[in-house]
Amino acid sequence: MSLIVMKFGGTSVATPELILRVARRVISVKRQGNDVIVVLSAMGHTTDELQDLAAKVSRNPAERDMAVLMTTGERISAALLAIALNDQGVPSRAFTGWQAGFVTDGDQPLRARILRVEPLRIRDALAEGLVPVVTGYQGITERGDETALGRGGSDLTAVALACALKADACEIYTDVDGVYTADPRVVPSARKMRHISYEEMLEMASMGAQVMQARSVEYAKKHGAVLHVRSSFSETPGTIIQEVDSTMESVLVRGIAHDMTEAKITLRGLADRPGIAAALFNRMSQSNVNVDMIVQNVSQDGVTDLSFTVPRADLRKAMDACLLVQRDIGAREVIADEEIAKVSVVGIGMRSHSGVAAKMFETLAAHNINIEMISTSEIKISCIVRESQGENAVRALHSVFALEQDEEY
Amino acid sequence: MSLIVMKFGGTSVATPELILRVARRVISVKRQGNDVIVVLSAMGHTTDELQDLAAKVSRNPAERDMAVLMTTGERISAALLAIALNDQGVPSRAFTGWQAGFVTDGDQPLRARILRVEPLRIRDALAEGLVPVVTGYQGITERGDETALGRGGSDLTAVALACALKADACEIYTDVDGVYTADPRVVPSARKMRHISYEEMLEMASMGAQVMQARSVEYAKKHGAVLHVRSSFSETPGTIIQEVDSTMESVLVRGIAHDMTEAKITLRGLADRPGIAAALFNRMSQSNVNVDMIVQNVSQDGVTDLSFTVPRADLRKAMDACLLVQRDIGAREVIADEEIAKVSVVGIGMRSHSGVAAKMFETLAAHNINIEMISTSEIKISCIVRESQGENAVRALHSVFALEQDEEY
Repeated sequence: MSLIVMKFGGTSVATPELILRVARRVISVKRQGNDVIVVLSAMGHTTDELQDLAAKVSRNPAERDMAVLMTTGERISAALLAIALNDQGVPSRAFTGWQAGFVTDGDQPLRARILRVEPLRIRDALAEGLVPVVTGYQGITERGDETALGRGGSDLTAVALACALKADACEIYTDVDGVYTADPRVVPSARKMRHISYEEMLEMASMGAQVMQARSVEYAKKHGAVLHVRSSFSETPGTIIQEVDSTMESVLVRGIAHDMTEAKITLRGLADRPGIAAALFNRMSQSNVNVDMIVQNVSQDGVTDLSFTVPRADLRKAMDACLLVQRDIGAREVIADEEIAKVSVVGIGMRSHSGVAAKMFETLAAHNINIEMISTSEIKISCIVRESQGENAVRALHSVFALEQDEEY
Repeated sequence: MSLIVMKFGGTSVATPELILRVARRVISVKRQGNDVIVVLSAMGHTTDELQDLAAKVSRNPAERDMAVLMTTGERISAALLAIALNDQGVPSRAFTGWQAGFVTDGDQPLRARILRVEPLRIRDALAEGLVPVVTGYQGITERGDETALGRGGSDLTAVALACALKADACEIYTDVDGVYTADPRVVPSARKMRHISYEEMLEMASMGAQVMQARSVEYAKKHGAVLHVRSSFSETPGTIIQEVDSTMESVLVRGIAHDMTEAKITLRGLADRPGIAAALFNRMSQSNVNVDMIVQNVSQDGVTDLSFTVPRADLRKAMDACLLVQRDIGAREVIADEEIAKVSVVGIGMRSHSGVAAKMFETLAAHNINIEMISTSEIKISCIVRESQGENAVRALHSVFALEQDEEY
């Protein structure tokens, strides 16, 4: 008998009819002789609706009150699924995050971090033969205050429960059927990957292939939980996320990610002396701007240029911060550019091989695509190009690395 | 400095705009130098909507799952009010039922009874100068399961908090502006009472003047909490519910209640021997039918007739139960009648006076209204009449007891 955690996202439980569909799916896994724990997100757009309600009574609602508000949606979906399962003869029970033993910190009640998971009641429920249905996205502080786990919090709930209970599988049911070698809307020949390593998934996820939040993947990696991302609307297997083993190393490049949600800021004519970058990025941090890529050119005549990328949504805040420090850091000019695309090749095999970067740059050049910034890590190479050329770049790279071929390890 | 509990019902918080209005009202009481605790119901029809959702996934949802579902509505309204108060510079904080210390039994999770109230966190919040906003209608079992307090549960939350914290006032804000001597829709000259005793309120409330559930009034009576029922849409004082004192005894009849939601069942030709009534009403109890009035005629020739009233909604269940035991109890005939009205005169002064019953019967006779059943208690006399004559009966009695005159003690 296996213990399986099944997590369903908001689109999978958006209506009572879909909840009945989820119930059938849970029942079929349970009837195969497994122990099942279900974790649910809020129905469809519930979370947005709650945010809209709050916006109507305050422009700047306090986080701790928002946490009480925002965690109601998962209670509704979890209660409804438990009701549906019981109705169909499968004994079940809804548990809130705190009943399931999620203890979090409380400094930022809408982005709380899990301190520990003590799923005593979930263990008891399993021992009684029940299917526990756990509200995703929420926990409680030591003092007894409700908290929310932030974006992707329901995935994290599922992963953390799977780790705490040493589940045999953690299945993330969503509205896509797995992780692809590239976005299928851009590359029609993109192939669903049967397996992907945690690190590759992190690079793919953080770069716009937003099947799962990086946070949940990191948690799974840390605790060695095997994840299975799959569609709630079909029976087809999805993509398994797990630790890489040596046989997986034969393939250099596993996927092409792209991201058109960033903007570039360039500071021209900076004084090239110690402390300049620190002053600038401290300011960004104080303004709560997440900086992604940073590139600084070699100094010429004691001045240099520095470029970095930020989410477009933060561009205004980032520019304000730059203008504040412009004089101090001696920048001649600050230029914002929203029309960029980030294109990345990702693959754990790149660690032990050279030549991938050269092949990437050559390919882009052959397609007349100019590279504006380059950033590399052990398992990915990212280039900033014009936004208008981003999709062409993805297609060209997908083809040159032959990702449409089924070369699963 | 006084401690005031303010409870607002669903129609008072139905929209974000109304929540802002409630916030202004709370702020004005707070700024008069009072400590304030707010208790809220769910917004408008939230509870019905949640019930509809459940009905779409099950015909017969389990109570414990329903309790998780049904208690979400008050969390939403309480969080929104706390957000609004904070936004307007009045430090506030939302507390769920269990955070506010409501411990209940758990046998019937949708109709849980309060075991104790331990409002430690509410005390702390008051000491910090916060306005605690508490979700009505909910608590938690010793084991940590969510429970709902049943109909009128938010009133009960307010009353129980007021008692536990020895509040100076417990104000129940609702969509009517107080308790009237009769239903103003039936008797245009009906007068709002400035004061009413707990017992009178219980009789008025249980008979269709459903301003507050009997349960909350009983709780307040037991703990000596003074209640103030008033409108959330005007500043006019409402009706104070409190212990009667001797000076209040001068008035015989305080109000006329009526109820058109009951049905009458008559069993004809019953054997007049011990155990018959017990057998019948045990059966009713097993079928979960609430029996109200019971009248048995004097036996003639060893057979008798028995009539009783039940809620119309339960008539079918009640008739089924009667037909099941008809042979055993030897009833010749079972007759259902839905076209009845119950009309009652209520007044604590009746205890020490005779003559009220006679005046009531004479008045009905003078208006050609036939009395079908009579039932009396220390502080009320109820008559069943034809439904078509019910409103006439109320008007005639209101007039003959001169209730339109302002004779407040």
